[in-house]
Amino acid sequence: MIQYPSGKKVNSKQKSLGITSRRGMSLEEDINKTNEAYLFKDRAVVHKKPTPIQIVNVDYPSRNKAKITEAYFRHASTTDYQGVYQGYALDFEAKETKNKTLFPLASLHEHQLNHIKAVKRHGAIAFLIIRFNALDETYLIFAEDLIKHINQDDVRSLSIQWIRSVGYEVSGTYQVPCDYIMIIDDYIKRSSYDK
Amino acid sequence: MIQYPSGKKVNSKQKSLGITSRRGMSLEEDINKTNEAYLFKDRAVVHKKPTPIQIVNVDYPSRNKAKITEAYFRHASTTDYQGVYQGYALDFEAKETKNKTLFPLASLHEHQLNHIKAVKRHGAIAFLIIRFNALDETYLIFAEDLIKHINQDDVRSLSIQWIRSVGYEVSGTYQVPCDYIMIIDDYIKRSSYDK
Repeated sequence: MIQYPSGKKVNSKQKSLGITSRRGMSLEEDINKTNEAYLFKDRAVVHKKPTPIQIVNVDYPSRNKAKITEAYFRHASTTDYQGVYQGYALDFEAKETKNKTLFPLASLHEHQLNHIKAVKRHGAIAFLIIRFNALDETYLIFAEDLIKHINQDDVRSLSIQWIRSVGYEVSGTYQVPCDYIMIIDDYIKRSSYDK
Repeated sequence: MIQYPSGKKVNSKQKSLGITSRRGMSLEEDINKTNEAYLFKDRAVVHKKPTPIQIVNVDYPSRNKAKITEAYFRHASTTDYQGVYQGYALDFEAKETKNKTLFPLASLHEHQLNHIKAVKRHGAIAFLIIRFNALDETYLIFAEDLIKHINQDDVRSLSIQWIRSVGYEVSGTYQVPCDYIMIIDDYIKRSSYDK
């Protein structure tokens, strides 16, 4: 079995074990499927960044084939998802937790948090998608709410109460299992009113 | 020596061989250095996507260390660079050629071209940066000009004449070797006038 350094299992394995969410799919799989649906409908263009890997050695078994024989996982310095929607840059990170009462901020790397702050400052719509597997609840939390909370309250975790009050629950269908664009739509409308 | 499937040499090797541009640095290195400078000055947030890699086998020589022992390079389905600047999503691909008279469009994968069209349609500022190594000239070509040219004239390459007339030459300094944001600034100003 392939394990990533974060301890996450590879998707196909997760799927066959059926250990995660209601549909037996990981949050990453749900978001990928959602992004494919958005792309197919030409609604938004959002892609997951490849996992950053440090390549140490490559073999050439045949003329045009490169085989990587030694490489290591690296920590991501940015978020996992980037895209464009209605002229806005979208930038977000998705995380799952088995915890029922809180999301530990330790699972968000400092580099990722700094990246979220930076893209927000430059005008992107930045957010987190957090899924509580045991509760079967998925929330979208906008960067400004997250940053304000961290700065003001010096928290090390996000409580489920805080997330429920500040975040937006993400719903979905079989085709679009994590339909976060609906929430972004409302956000854009609200932002326009604010101007 | 590590070679990527595109035939590009790895940067450190390229640097030591001094085979590419005026500063002995590849376009990719110039853009990475430029993006670091933009990030440091908090001018823009632009990152290169990691090379997509298909992982086949991973070993665990010790408890917390994952060693990839078999993996392969995959073709990129999007462009290499994504970012945010003044509220705009930036999306671009960078290419070098040794050719002195034209840039062959074959070196732009169909997936990448479709991606450029899609992000442009959704409101990103999308472009190509093309460097002619033998001429020591680097140009920025906006997606709309590229798409119009390809659609109208059914070309298989971009001639240096066309690039010089439609593109914007990119200049730079030692700290900011490929200062494309200056060109984006003018573009945003022009677009505002058009509105």
